[in-house]
Amino acid sequence: MRSFSEIFESYQTQTDSIIFPVQPENLYGSITYFLRSPGKKIRPVLCLMSNELFKEVHADAYHVANAVELFHNFSLVHDDIMDHSVLRRGRPTLHLKYGENTAILAGDILLIHAYMQLNKINISYREQITHLFSEMACRICEGQQMDIDFEKREIETLKYTDYLRMITFKTSVLLGTAAQIGAIIGLANPQQQNNIYDFGENIGIAFQIQDDFLDAFGDVSITGKQVGSDILENKKTALLLKAFELADPLQKMELKAAMLLIGEERIHTVIGLYKNLKVDEWASTAILHYTEIAFKSLDLIDIPVYKKEKLAELANSLLVRQS
Amino acid sequence: MRSFSEIFESYQTQTDSIIFPVQPENLYGSITYFLRSPGKKIRPVLCLMSNELFKEVHADAYHVANAVELFHNFSLVHDDIMDHSVLRRGRPTLHLKYGENTAILAGDILLIHAYMQLNKINISYREQITHLFSEMACRICEGQQMDIDFEKREIETLKYTDYLRMITFKTSVLLGTAAQIGAIIGLANPQQQNNIYDFGENIGIAFQIQDDFLDAFGDVSITGKQVGSDILENKKTALLLKAFELADPLQKMELKAAMLLIGEERIHTVIGLYKNLKVDEWASTAILHYTEIAFKSLDLIDIPVYKKEKLAELANSLLVRQS
Repeated sequence: MRSFSEIFESYQTQTDSIIFPVQPENLYGSITYFLRSPGKKIRPVLCLMSNELFKEVHADAYHVANAVELFHNFSLVHDDIMDHSVLRRGRPTLHLKYGENTAILAGDILLIHAYMQLNKINISYREQITHLFSEMACRICEGQQMDIDFEKREIETLKYTDYLRMITFKTSVLLGTAAQIGAIIGLANPQQQNNIYDFGENIGIAFQIQDDFLDAFGDVSITGKQVGSDILENKKTALLLKAFELADPLQKMELKAAMLLIGEERIHTVIGLYKNLKVDEWASTAILHYTEIAFKSLDLIDIPVYKKEKLAELANSLLVRQS
Repeated sequence: MRSFSEIFESYQTQTDSIIFPVQPENLYGSITYFLRSPGKKIRPVLCLMSNELFKEVHADAYHVANAVELFHNFSLVHDDIMDHSVLRRGRPTLHLKYGENTAILAGDILLIHAYMQLNKINISYREQITHLFSEMACRICEGQQMDIDFEKREIETLKYTDYLRMITFKTSVLLGTAAQIGAIIGLANPQQQNNIYDFGENIGIAFQIQDDFLDAFGDVSITGKQVGSDILENKKTALLLKAFELADPLQKMELKAAMLLIGEERIHTVIGLYKNLKVDEWASTAILHYTEIAFKSLDLIDIPVYKKEKLAELANSLLVRQS
């Protein structure tokens, strides 16, 4: 089986084959602008790797990978509008450059084109894959709605389990489904399909908690990201929610007071409180927990171990494994 | 064959069978709110009538009619955001009641559910119908983009033919496609499919020009709508574009000056100029022209005339036939 970067290379040539009309110029220009900025393509490549885990990559896997990538871009374009984001992949977001109306339509077109890709695959699995894809698509919209609702709620009314449900819907279901539909095209049996789904979903959860963890406890020389941007936004991360769960009444007051401080002082104080509450240790354990579930799910797939090495490699490159 | 209102009745019971989850409450509550307001259901009923024109209504026709109706509602929800509309079917628009973010997501969910309906139909025509549906969906988004671009352009740089293309994409393609996919489920042959498509599309065009015409020349006691709302908004209607095409330089200056007047005076003066330029007569002829194409397309369908009566009846109820 080929590595992530090898499959990434062969996928690159395929993405360019998704052809959009030229007119109206604003609409399709905005889509080209967005798709041309280089993403990591983790989801479509995972889909192709998951196919190759079981059988040689089938032409249909490229259609499905395209559908996954188009869908992912649809959700980014619409999410960026909702989150008022200004930058995406280092460039101005689509709605900032082309206006919100065109961004709504560009997202819609990307979603329609995702389904156009699914309409090309073999009828033997088209219905099943389209069904799984649609269910996944609904969960991701629901996850985004939960996130919107989340931001409006008082921190103390939220639980870490609510967060877990939200990020599972918002991001991990897509990784799980991308892996599963790749496996379906590789003619995996239902048990294998479920295992590879669990692998993808749990990597997604571990990755998301790790993302929150690194924002507070990451090494800038490794991550390349400034520490504390979530803290500056008072973002409802796994760490903050868990901290409130673990805190006694006095510590809760300290946390609330820290969240009102300015700049570096806020970052420094909140991280200090996280350490007192051992939220860093808790997060490391949680990341490890989901990483282990992911690897166990991969282990459970009844094919020779050497065939699974490249997927394990991918998981290790995404997750700073702690064991 | 049954009449519009008979098929409308049987369709009503089917729409209620589209089931959405309950959570997140905001998201699905907003969708229920929107779908519960009674629309005219012209598109899905046209789809069912078009099936019944050729064969008894098949269960799949309800899925396809649902897809058409869900899609139509998706486009209304997103268009209302873009157009900053405050009322839809006499009630506050979805984005006004639930916020723009939820409205974007609600539209997305409606679009996904449209495809979920298509995924249920028989494989013998699923690929063809999904393809036609997706092409139609793209055209409608393109039409909305054209409309956005339209509003930003100087009136003199626009032609009536641009308008015609825009409204064909934005509204008529959906009527044509709804009719065509109903016919496909009724196992109509390709020629019959094309004819019924043309019937739907041309009714749509005639209806749209009629809408513009009635805004200026309609009888409030019949239409129930106040005359001149398009004129008060300086909306780029078929009438205004044609007026600029027909006007000489002096008349163009008069039109521009009239568009700066206030309230009743603007309405009165613009309508006067329309009459001088015989735009009312031109519009009547244009409506007649597209109505005739629609009826000719219906005539061309090689089945007994009596079977087509109910569709002709529907067209007549939508269009104030002038011949």
